[in-house]
Amino acid sequence: MPTWQELAADEKQRQQASIPKDWLITSPPDTQFDVTNVPASCGLLTPFELEVTETDDVGLLLARLAAGELSSVDATLAFYKRAVVAHQVTNCLTEIYVERALARAKECDDYLKAQGKPMGALHGLPISIKDQFCMKGLETTIGLVWRIGNYPERDATLVTILYEAGAVPFVRTNVPQTLMWVETFNNVFGRTVNPFNRNLTCGGSSGGEGALVAMKGSPLGVGSDIAGSIRVPSAFNGLFGLRPSANRFPLEGTAGTMEGFDSVPPVLGPMTRSISGVKAFTKAVIDAKPWTMDPLVVRKEWDEGAYQLKEHGEGKDLCFAIMWDNGCVLPHPPIRRALEETKRALLAKGFKVIDWPEFNYAELCTPVLRMWAGGAGEDFAAHAAKSGEPLHKTLTPEGKSVGFEWLPQDVHLSVYESWQLQKKKTGMRKEHLDLWRSTASFTGTGRPIDAIITPAAAYAAVPHGRNIDASYTMTWNVLDYTTCIFPVSKVDPTVDAKQSRGSFFNDVDEFVHNLYDPSTWVNAPVALQLVGQNLEEEAVIRLTGIVDDALESYRKK
Amino acid sequence: MPTWQELAADEKQRQQASIPKDWLITSPPDTQFDVTNVPASCGLLTPFELEVTETDDVGLLLARLAAGELSSVDATLAFYKRAVVAHQVTNCLTEIYVERALARAKECDDYLKAQGKPMGALHGLPISIKDQFCMKGLETTIGLVWRIGNYPERDATLVTILYEAGAVPFVRTNVPQTLMWVETFNNVFGRTVNPFNRNLTCGGSSGGEGALVAMKGSPLGVGSDIAGSIRVPSAFNGLFGLRPSANRFPLEGTAGTMEGFDSVPPVLGPMTRSISGVKAFTKAVIDAKPWTMDPLVVRKEWDEGAYQLKEHGEGKDLCFAIMWDNGCVLPHPPIRRALEETKRALLAKGFKVIDWPEFNYAELCTPVLRMWAGGAGEDFAAHAAKSGEPLHKTLTPEGKSVGFEWLPQDVHLSVYESWQLQKKKTGMRKEHLDLWRSTASFTGTGRPIDAIITPAAAYAAVPHGRNIDASYTMTWNVLDYTTCIFPVSKVDPTVDAKQSRGSFFNDVDEFVHNLYDPSTWVNAPVALQLVGQNLEEEAVIRLTGIVDDALESYRKK
Repeated sequence: MPTWQELAADEKQRQQASIPKDWLITSPPDTQFDVTNVPASCGLLTPFELEVTETDDVGLLLARLAAGELSSVDATLAFYKRAVVAHQVTNCLTEIYVERALARAKECDDYLKAQGKPMGALHGLPISIKDQFCMKGLETTIGLVWRIGNYPERDATLVTILYEAGAVPFVRTNVPQTLMWVETFNNVFGRTVNPFNRNLTCGGSSGGEGALVAMKGSPLGVGSDIAGSIRVPSAFNGLFGLRPSANRFPLEGTAGTMEGFDSVPPVLGPMTRSISGVKAFTKAVIDAKPWTMDPLVVRKEWDEGAYQLKEHGEGKDLCFAIMWDNGCVLPHPPIRRALEETKRALLAKGFKVIDWPEFNYAELCTPVLRMWAGGAGEDFAAHAAKSGEPLHKTLTPEGKSVGFEWLPQDVHLSVYESWQLQKKKTGMRKEHLDLWRSTASFTGTGRPIDAIITPAAAYAAVPHGRNIDASYTMTWNVLDYTTCIFPVSKVDPTVDAKQSRGSFFNDVDEFVHNLYDPSTWVNAPVALQLVGQNLEEEAVIRLTGIVDDALESYRKK
Repeated sequence: MPTWQELAADEKQRQQASIPKDWLITSPPDTQFDVTNVPASCGLLTPFELEVTETDDVGLLLARLAAGELSSVDATLAFYKRAVVAHQVTNCLTEIYVERALARAKECDDYLKAQGKPMGALHGLPISIKDQFCMKGLETTIGLVWRIGNYPERDATLVTILYEAGAVPFVRTNVPQTLMWVETFNNVFGRTVNPFNRNLTCGGSSGGEGALVAMKGSPLGVGSDIAGSIRVPSAFNGLFGLRPSANRFPLEGTAGTMEGFDSVPPVLGPMTRSISGVKAFTKAVIDAKPWTMDPLVVRKEWDEGAYQLKEHGEGKDLCFAIMWDNGCVLPHPPIRRALEETKRALLAKGFKVIDWPEFNYAELCTPVLRMWAGGAGEDFAAHAAKSGEPLHKTLTPEGKSVGFEWLPQDVHLSVYESWQLQKKKTGMRKEHLDLWRSTASFTGTGRPIDAIITPAAAYAAVPHGRNIDASYTMTWNVLDYTTCIFPVSKVDPTVDAKQSRGSFFNDVDEFVHNLYDPSTWVNAPVALQLVGQNLEEEAVIRLTGIVDDALESYRKK
């Protein structure tokens, strides 16, 4: 029997061997923190390939692919080369399968030529997928050694849908061990870093996607999220990232940990550089009627009226609420500045902006964290024991805990006690719904607020191993609200000076405050989160687009 | 401190005092099993009141109320008198509040006069409600002594919606202790019996509704269902009863046991004597946008296209599958006959009818029963301990167990183990979905089957304390499919002779077989169940109407 170290080393060696030799680049020195320019400077990509991969607007890419102006083979090859470059500087990929992807791309091109019409709504588009969605013939490790060498017999439902829609799944991306960290490091593939500043984390658990899409090595990636795993890496890498409500998209056929814990179901969602990409992906997946394949998916068609903001005054007199902080952790100065800029941008467009009222967010996640703790320890230990690999207790490079454990600790909890926690959680969801509804009395629109704008985290990407708070994202998983991350700016040490504070909400808040040093954070993307209500995917996408437009106008002034 | 017996006696005495003196009738002798003729024969109701209450078609009642042809006060008074008569022969009611209901009815009448339009889609309609939905100013005991004297501060969301839709909630109906029996007996209000044959159970847990609506003491009642609690009493009393999918209707603000167990959420639904009533209720509740009041409700509007069977070939070449038995308990002869008659009726209308394939239904409910068992004992004990009342171990009148316990027994189960059960359940849901989808290859319509027709139970109403199997209903809660009960016929000893059997699926099957004696079952209603897929409320209502029409044509031949 090989040891876990041998298994991991073999997997990593096979990965390295799967990279075409002439795509290997001379790596920049470790002292080069920002590696986003490497694809352009390394000389591997042609000007045409650079132009294709730097087309952020997925809607535009799809139009060119559907019209045959851009072949899927050309697009896939361009993104593949760039993905492999991205991997060499950020370690973002797991499986690399160039020939299979190019063969699929050719299938799309042939179809278009033969049928005179695209294969589906995502015709020819290369899509990267988190190493969690099973694909026939490829390994799905989710960062666990025991899963090395396991080849699923069939595709996950989402993968089936992507193929039927004409997409080209082309690379798989890295995750943390157990998937339950908001950074990306495991014993099989190692650590993924932030391309804007390699001293910083790319976030997690969909961190490989975050780094890859930010490097423009993929036009659109698929992540998953139970407490922030789509949104944290989207925010840390300056992307759009949608966390839909539970069971709008199909997770059937994916691998995971904590399987069977269904109080807060994980969800999948797109991570991309344009809101057009978020919309195209969402509509394509829903139009495939995923409820006919995944018994958990809600039977709910794409609602064009909702996208046209029928229930939000047709988008005319929108009222946004800003959550400046959640009472748990005060945001760092760059996040505060992003909220202020967004407020000014929305006011400049004639929208209303009010402050979101207080709510006991500190209490909201407690029942779910305790339910996790009741089973996660046993679950994680079972996964680790299968190979003998150790479970990570911290993700710091030095291996020393920073004093706050993100991972749920094992505690005794009876099933009856878990019911009481579930009941408490449902009660708080009702309180929050009533709070939202009650805003109708002071928005001035006759409606409740149309969306909340909140931080995605109290900080931009933090140094490795320091991402200890997910309260700004997990809150919305617990409430099961639809949310979307949108990029705003970057950390700028000249304006984002550290502020002194005399008191703190709690120890985590103090730790987070002390962590901040503008010089460490330089160049880190800053993003925010737009929050709609449960099953409001269509409206949230449209509203995020409106905020993005407002920010673009604001920046031009 | 009063004893639990004193508290229960006081509650029962207050109930008796709430009946207007001149509505007391001379009770028929205990030897009169069928009491359905008592409202007509007792002399309390005028011919007009008899005509109003015998209008089974709720759509017709609503039209007359909305047009002002029938006043809500007249309708409410008529149904109230009949409800009180029904109560005196079946013990179906809990709270009786005549003046409050008549004042509400007058409010509806005044509104119509003043505004020239009805208050809402359920304008003026008296609606009975299971003693589980909190109403401000009324007790909600759910058959538990400790809850006597507890007056909720606000209405349940469903009650709010009914008021807004113009309805007149007018009586509350009896349930079993803990709600977790499929019969109706508790230490506060006693036992409710079947009006067609008082030797038989009315079913449960919404058994008060079942007996009341069958007695025509209410045009429409609201029940709830976690394993059959709407459907068993609907079937045993010859009614239509809809079990919607989880979270289509709002349960927020109801009382319950096993709160926080959310793997199989309880649901509410209508019980009534016409499919028009099922539709009117369903559409009215959904049109009220219950997701703005209950955080668990799915944001999904009434889908008229689904009701028009857009996804079912516009209703033209429907293909039904018949489940003759579920491999757990073989149906008694009257149920088999109902399936055969329904098949003939559908074939006569030109529809296709095929046999539903085998599936491991015996295994399907096991994970959920074990999850219940992990917490129910502690939960029930906590409810009983608050007053000192004993927990029922059997519902036989003689107090002796028949050998099979319906109630979950307390067993040790860790949270991690409950996750494994949940995972198993989800896997079986996927298997069943794939099975349904696979029928497209042999229906001949190009689609999968449009609905399954199954027994609602292996038997018509059984003698008290003998309702030991809920597999025919619980299956669909576990799968979360939408189902609707429809009446077919009555037990007829001249044609439903007992058949001999040489072998049995299991001990429960053998017990059920031995139980049958046509002479005991005489006059018991026989109903079946139409099963659609998850969140198919609109289509299931329409399809049930089509089956009902087919049966009506068949009976006329």
